[in-house]
Amino acid sequence: MSSSFAQRLKEAIVAKKSPLIIGLDPDLAKFPPVLRANSEGDAEKAARAILAFNCALIDATCDLAAAVKPQAAFYEVYGSHGVRVLEETAAYARKKGLLVILDAKRGDVPNTAQAYARAYLAPENETTCPADALTVNPYLGRDSVEPFVRAAQENGKGIFVLVRTSNPGASDLQDLTSRETGHPLWQEVASWVAAWAEATRGNETYSPVGIVAGLTYPEEAALLRSLLPHSYLLLPGVGAQGGQIKDALPCFDKEGLGALVVAARSVIYAYSRPPYKDRFTPDEFAAAAREAAADLLAELYAAGYKVGR
Amino acid sequence: MSSSFAQRLKEAIVAKKSPLIIGLDPDLAKFPPVLRANSEGDAEKAARAILAFNCALIDATCDLAAAVKPQAAFYEVYGSHGVRVLEETAAYARKKGLLVILDAKRGDVPNTAQAYARAYLAPENETTCPADALTVNPYLGRDSVEPFVRAAQENGKGIFVLVRTSNPGASDLQDLTSRETGHPLWQEVASWVAAWAEATRGNETYSPVGIVAGLTYPEEAALLRSLLPHSYLLLPGVGAQGGQIKDALPCFDKEGLGALVVAARSVIYAYSRPPYKDRFTPDEFAAAAREAAADLLAELYAAGYKVGR
Repeated sequence: MSSSFAQRLKEAIVAKKSPLIIGLDPDLAKFPPVLRANSEGDAEKAARAILAFNCALIDATCDLAAAVKPQAAFYEVYGSHGVRVLEETAAYARKKGLLVILDAKRGDVPNTAQAYARAYLAPENETTCPADALTVNPYLGRDSVEPFVRAAQENGKGIFVLVRTSNPGASDLQDLTSRETGHPLWQEVASWVAAWAEATRGNETYSPVGIVAGLTYPEEAALLRSLLPHSYLLLPGVGAQGGQIKDALPCFDKEGLGALVVAARSVIYAYSRPPYKDRFTPDEFAAAAREAAADLLAELYAAGYKVGR
Repeated sequence: MSSSFAQRLKEAIVAKKSPLIIGLDPDLAKFPPVLRANSEGDAEKAARAILAFNCALIDATCDLAAAVKPQAAFYEVYGSHGVRVLEETAAYARKKGLLVILDAKRGDVPNTAQAYARAYLAPENETTCPADALTVNPYLGRDSVEPFVRAAQENGKGIFVLVRTSNPGASDLQDLTSRETGHPLWQEVASWVAAWAEATRGNETYSPVGIVAGLTYPEEAALLRSLLPHSYLLLPGVGAQGGQIKDALPCFDKEGLGALVVAARSVIYAYSRPPYKDRFTPDEFAAAAREAAADLLAELYAAGYKVGR
């Protein structure tokens, strides 16, 4: 890596004029029939179908998005066959000028966290799973995240720590108020991130340590923006989960940087949803995805998004 | 699966007269030189070395342990090659009469959690990664854990929800006191587990929903035992992390069931540690591991452990 993750992100966002991230969550049951054929019950064939699906989506959207975000679960369904296809997807996305944010939400005791950091954030992973950044779960505490922080800083990679997630149940734990601090739990995690970001950013505006903040909770996302001036906000939840793209606006800085809007199901399965299903056949799933991504980007610009000084 | 996870666990513990779990955390840097040779920088060769290491350990300890607990991170270091070897390790352990508890600490929004549950707890995973149980991270809330609970119940599998982890940083988040409930966070998670356990146990004493409780915090582990009468306690932290095996005793019921003591580094790398390193050569790593496991089990019995009515 010749540059920091934040520098590569900035270059990609400015070049594409887009802070969109395409979520690659391949679910065979939602695939167009042409791709699904003959793969039921055969992990290797299913994995090949996923690769064909992903490559077509990457070809169709690579000029409209800064990065892809493969969700590890959907690959692990097919065991080592699925993981190999995850690796091939990541390599293909890189070749097409996209950064790769691996959404694997790893987190473990320090000795094990080091192994995860090595798996996804070390130079040698370039030959296995080439990722630029990884999502990380903070439940085990600061010493469980620090190996990822160190690896990201040393290797020009990034991490996104789960702070306020996009699901309805997020409030169960993340909203509990700490008697010690008087703040909800997600703000406690945010305070750790603030310290790591300050310690690792050097002279750059954005550090290698970002966060995940669901757009389904726009007030929290906006507050996190102000609490964490040196962290990228990865914003899932738009589309299928009900988040509104206009709510992403307060999360960008005046250059249009600092936040990433994730679109997954609403883009990659656009062929099966209105209004696209009326205009595209299932075989045209990639063209439908391109139009859905372009529409989402247009909606963001219409709401006032600007990129570049 | 013809029986529940709790029934299979009971049969294994009674048959082996052992609640020990061998943690398979293969770290090439700690391998005996004979296995490490020529594998540096080659993910496929490294993965083959891991399989050889694991199979030798399984052969040497399969009559002394109820289950193995592969830690996914150490396999993911080698990408799809590592994951294939994880699958082969799990299949080999099964063949040798051991249950497989996959320590992958997965957790995600409901739609993605379903995919993880399918990857590790569904009948079709028997041909990819054959696991009997999976560790699960609760940070995202109840709706993120429920897909795992359902899959475990439906498919005769188990889960272990992280409650109080064994690392020093565990207190950062897990010990924060909730103003709403007056209890530390880990007790909030325990209350969810209590409800799931009650809802899924049917007529059995133990439900498919267990927890992880670090033996490095013995008071919390003992309290969790009393709070969760229908959950297995998976107890890591003995050995390298400083936990004492005698502290496991309050976690067992009067039949010697209800808890599982994990030994990983202290057993699998015993050849490199006193007192075993004086009596075994590195080539005899499996024999050293067997002796370390037998010593640990003897220590547990000497402290008062009993199995069977």
